[in-house]
Amino acid sequence: MSDSTPLSFTILGTGALGGFYGSRLLLGGATVRFIAHSDVDWIRAHGLRVDSPLGDHLFHPVEVYASSDLIPPSAVVCIGLKTTLNDRLPELLAPLVGAGTVILNWQNGLTLEEELAACFPQAVVIAGLCFLCSNKVGPGHIVHLDYGRISLAARDEPGLVWLPRLQAAFGAGGIETDVQPSLPAARWRKLAWNIPFNGLSVLLDRNTDAIMADPEARALAERLMHEVAAGAAACGVPFAPDFIPQLLAATERMAPYAPSMRLDFLAKRPLEVEYLYRRPLREAARHGVRMPGVETIAAQLSLLDRANRGDSASGAE
Amino acid sequence: MSDSTPLSFTILGTGALGGFYGSRLLLGGATVRFIAHSDVDWIRAHGLRVDSPLGDHLFHPVEVYASSDLIPPSAVVCIGLKTTLNDRLPELLAPLVGAGTVILNWQNGLTLEEELAACFPQAVVIAGLCFLCSNKVGPGHIVHLDYGRISLAARDEPGLVWLPRLQAAFGAGGIETDVQPSLPAARWRKLAWNIPFNGLSVLLDRNTDAIMADPEARALAERLMHEVAAGAAACGVPFAPDFIPQLLAATERMAPYAPSMRLDFLAKRPLEVEYLYRRPLREAARHGVRMPGVETIAAQLSLLDRANRGDSASGAE
Repeated sequence: MSDSTPLSFTILGTGALGGFYGSRLLLGGATVRFIAHSDVDWIRAHGLRVDSPLGDHLFHPVEVYASSDLIPPSAVVCIGLKTTLNDRLPELLAPLVGAGTVILNWQNGLTLEEELAACFPQAVVIAGLCFLCSNKVGPGHIVHLDYGRISLAARDEPGLVWLPRLQAAFGAGGIETDVQPSLPAARWRKLAWNIPFNGLSVLLDRNTDAIMADPEARALAERLMHEVAAGAAACGVPFAPDFIPQLLAATERMAPYAPSMRLDFLAKRPLEVEYLYRRPLREAARHGVRMPGVETIAAQLSLLDRANRGDSASGAE
Repeated sequence: MSDSTPLSFTILGTGALGGFYGSRLLLGGATVRFIAHSDVDWIRAHGLRVDSPLGDHLFHPVEVYASSDLIPPSAVVCIGLKTTLNDRLPELLAPLVGAGTVILNWQNGLTLEEELAACFPQAVVIAGLCFLCSNKVGPGHIVHLDYGRISLAARDEPGLVWLPRLQAAFGAGGIETDVQPSLPAARWRKLAWNIPFNGLSVLLDRNTDAIMADPEARALAERLMHEVAAGAAACGVPFAPDFIPQLLAATERMAPYAPSMRLDFLAKRPLEVEYLYRRPLREAARHGVRMPGVETIAAQLSLLDRANRGDSASGAE
């Protein structure tokens, strides 16, 4: 396949992330195969609708599969599922991944790419860190609100040659990308935002703007960021000195935003505590650093999550 | 006044604490003057009712005053108000405190006695740390559930001679007391329970038994206890090695219990964040120790407290 051949993508998970980015890849001329779960029949019948400041589109017909279908092989498999489904990920990916298949992982958290590479040594694992405000509002219906940039980071050497081709495919669909030289550094930087704002949005029942507007909550978010910075430094990827001030300033400029964990909590879906909190805590601890404030909110989130989903052992009296 | 003369007490605050202990002092033969706020007319008309496993009693008539009344001087003034009223405490206490008056402080928190002594250098300041499950259930109506012991700790030399007389007065009313040689040590030990369980009962919306039953929440409570232990040690009053295990075991044996902060939160009353959290954080920091998990829950409590009481700047969107 020459560099000018359009790439083919299989998108595992046709939600806020997969539905949006898949639609942009389609518009850029790529072959896109969507895998959907509950929406598969609806999308077959009615198509995939994506409303966006970049333009509203209905894709109908669209190549959509249930995970159990026979699916033609694609060069790139994108993971658009929540990490709360990761115990099923090896089973879901296995039929899609051959020798040299690129796995582009859109999930948030830490150690994801190591686990994928361990399961699929024949694949090329690349992280795609998504900076996107998008919601699924109904079956086969995605509403893109703002942003959309993807930071690409190869896990190892074989991934590097793929980066320009991925940039070209996303760029053709109007999606900005950048390339990050260090995957762990990029992951930790993203955690510096996700750890405070996802957790506090649930625990304080507030969107980002309300957290930033309250001096104590903002100071707490900042302290949590500094704990994440200590974890990152312990793991060998220290933040630049101006990174946290810039992150706070960027958050202040953001439109009021409900982080995905808050939406999950309000919808009584499981929370991504494991990959967003426990793995970073574990990795930092392996390098001799504790993040006690992060531990504190992680334990609270874990209990509230279980109770929220009706685990009676955790239920309020 | 000889040691056999019954002591006189003025009880500032006729709530769960003041109403209960005042009733026991009355039954023990002491002179007791209650100061009530909203309930004063009701108690004058109907008396003070205290239901307790120790016996149910109606005290009618009872010596009850509004804080603005002329009140005869008592040997001992007991503080049974919430610390959230402490900005008014000097003004409320001033007419009650003369040279040599004993101020027996029933409040929870840190640095309370230092502040009282600074305001009232002519008084004798003694801490009375209450281990009591009691609720005010209606006007002039207290329900005592369990426990009741008071740990007495003199702030300085002049307080020591009063301790046996206070023990006798409470003992005569069926209240166990003990004497603690170190006031700061006693205060920090009490914080080791109050800091985790008051805060988490609000943040996790659960009573103590549900917190203890959940392994992660219990582990969080234990980590917070260890932070308090580090704060205590920094302030020169380290815990005994078996103190935290014993405290956890005692909590496990307790009946399901809603800590006072949870009751305050549910009733939309202000939370005692300042004296239970901020002062200990400040004192530990003065001695070079941070308590990051405690900081984390303190900031959450502070924001939720303000929002709970309708501070629109903190309100959920």
